[in-house]
Amino acid sequence: MAVSEVWRAKARARLDTLTKPLGSLGRLEDVAAQVAAIRQEKAMEPMRAAVYCFAADHGVTAEGVSAYPSEVTRQMVLNFVGGGAAINVLARLHGVALTVVDVGVDGEFEGIAGMVHAKVRRGSRNMRREAAMSAAEMAAAMDVGARMAAEAAAAGFGMVAAGEMGIGNTTAASAMTAALTGVGADVVTGSGTGVGSVQRSRKVTVVEETLAAHFGIGGSVERPSCTQILECVGGLEIAAMAGFYLGAARAGLVVVCDGFIATAAAAIAVGMEPEVAGYLIAGHKSEEPGHAVLLEHLGLRPLLDLGMRLGEGTGAVLAMPVIASAMALYGQMATFGDAGVSEAGA
Amino acid sequence: MAVSEVWRAKARARLDTLTKPLGSLGRLEDVAAQVAAIRQEKAMEPMRAAVYCFAADHGVTAEGVSAYPSEVTRQMVLNFVGGGAAINVLARLHGVALTVVDVGVDGEFEGIAGMVHAKVRRGSRNMRREAAMSAAEMAAAMDVGARMAAEAAAAGFGMVAAGEMGIGNTTAASAMTAALTGVGADVVTGSGTGVGSVQRSRKVTVVEETLAAHFGIGGSVERPSCTQILECVGGLEIAAMAGFYLGAARAGLVVVCDGFIATAAAAIAVGMEPEVAGYLIAGHKSEEPGHAVLLEHLGLRPLLDLGMRLGEGTGAVLAMPVIASAMALYGQMATFGDAGVSEAGA
Repeated sequence: MAVSEVWRAKARARLDTLTKPLGSLGRLEDVAAQVAAIRQEKAMEPMRAAVYCFAADHGVTAEGVSAYPSEVTRQMVLNFVGGGAAINVLARLHGVALTVVDVGVDGEFEGIAGMVHAKVRRGSRNMRREAAMSAAEMAAAMDVGARMAAEAAAAGFGMVAAGEMGIGNTTAASAMTAALTGVGADVVTGSGTGVGSVQRSRKVTVVEETLAAHFGIGGSVERPSCTQILECVGGLEIAAMAGFYLGAARAGLVVVCDGFIATAAAAIAVGMEPEVAGYLIAGHKSEEPGHAVLLEHLGLRPLLDLGMRLGEGTGAVLAMPVIASAMALYGQMATFGDAGVSEAGA
Repeated sequence: MAVSEVWRAKARARLDTLTKPLGSLGRLEDVAAQVAAIRQEKAMEPMRAAVYCFAADHGVTAEGVSAYPSEVTRQMVLNFVGGGAAINVLARLHGVALTVVDVGVDGEFEGIAGMVHAKVRRGSRNMRREAAMSAAEMAAAMDVGARMAAEAAAAGFGMVAAGEMGIGNTTAASAMTAALTGVGADVVTGSGTGVGSVQRSRKVTVVEETLAAHFGIGGSVERPSCTQILECVGGLEIAAMAGFYLGAARAGLVVVCDGFIATAAAAIAVGMEPEVAGYLIAGHKSEEPGHAVLLEHLGLRPLLDLGMRLGEGTGAVLAMPVIASAMALYGQMATFGDAGVSEAGA
């Protein structure tokens, strides 16, 4: 499932024949070459895009780590279904198909159409006191994500992203980031949806106590495995995203990574299967401090840096026109020969 | 012609009612507020976009400052008319209307349709030896740009950009940047379309000698006026862009600034009329070192930073979907009240 270095080199060679100074499209050239390495003979074909927004609640909200009450997860899912959230607006504007998936919201959606009902349980457990999920729950949530990726591929989408909604999930992502990278909880924990400095200190303490409970003091006893991290301090929507990335890479899809929580899930997927990394394009860098730590951990350089911290897949969808631009330039620009333009030094 | 701070504040207040954590759209919120400050009661209306690509040659190419021969300016204009250049691809993809304007190419376009014929003269003079333009030529070129901006406004466009094509024009922009900001020629002069280090040193020397000839050693005798700078070390397409920005601001259009040369023209326009600054959104930061100097001089923060250095308006058009995203979010997202979503701390 590794991406094709042969196709990446072919794409680089083609880019150098186009009517522009060598390398003058900057990172767009890297993106075009990466997409060619992923899509190979389909590199020139139109690439329809889809975003899947996975929602779940987090037991750790009982510790008072979030600016918003847990009920907001369910309310926002209804907002997604109603078309009024940021991800709806961006997906409509950029022609990206949006699918909303309940993988673990602590509330019912009986009779609600226009979403995927795949609830594994009503919220993860409080990770400060016990593992967020059982192994079976984690596997079930990963399967939901993998199924969505397979459906996207079967429906002919070429580029996908995963977004999330889950009050409390920056706390989970902070714990995951500390456990994955060894960087301290105080560094990787931000203000999430907007907690003040006192509540952020509380959040740091919760993350530290959680890490100590599961992995020993500071997580330093032994570096836990990705499976242990996801199971103990992840969440149902995060497990679904990890499964989604694994499935999307297996299906040969271009995967645009969203913000902090989405990238924590991507780091798990790459930890489980390193070749997933070749399929990932970092859409943006979020304001959450842990996101930069994860991007560096994965060796990813984000396309956009606009100070966003909303999740839902918004940063990934906002980057899709940039990726589409790279591919249109790659496929449609005239060559020096075709256009009768003199080359450098001629 | 100042933008409306009342409308900027109204827009900020509306953004805080939308179903997202406060401020979580980051710079998109600043963009939406700025566009509201410019467009006022039209802020919610759809905003069609246009890009004008001004082309001219530069007498200073006789000094051997460019990687490409001068003929490439004319060849690339024909490539624009034929639809094969990068700006054509991006404009098509993002639904931006493209107009190609000959304001001073050293060659004929007899019988060529699909472009604006507004040649002021066949290339600027060699600025190392004499002023690049006469005062009358500069005024004529500025008028061409102002006319294009007025036509854009009359045609109902709400957002515009200026791009350029002109072999040798990074040398002009480097001289302009040094003269405008006082930063040394060696700092603000880059490799343009791709000259090597020896040729870049030659380019720095040409810029230094040019500045000394027109403005005294190092330009330090007295800071020249914007008119003097444009006339002595500018270019016909750069003058057209400066006129375009002045006209666009007067017409109340949102102006997206492209790369190094476009921003040098913007700095002239702002120097002549400081209120133009409120209409400018910096689309991107180019790889040319002088561009960062100019952006700081103007107090502009670019939306994109993708290592591009192509000109033509490509960086501005690539930023337009980001601006369109900001306005769609501003106009279409549900409010907390409408969507029944609890607010923070509730």
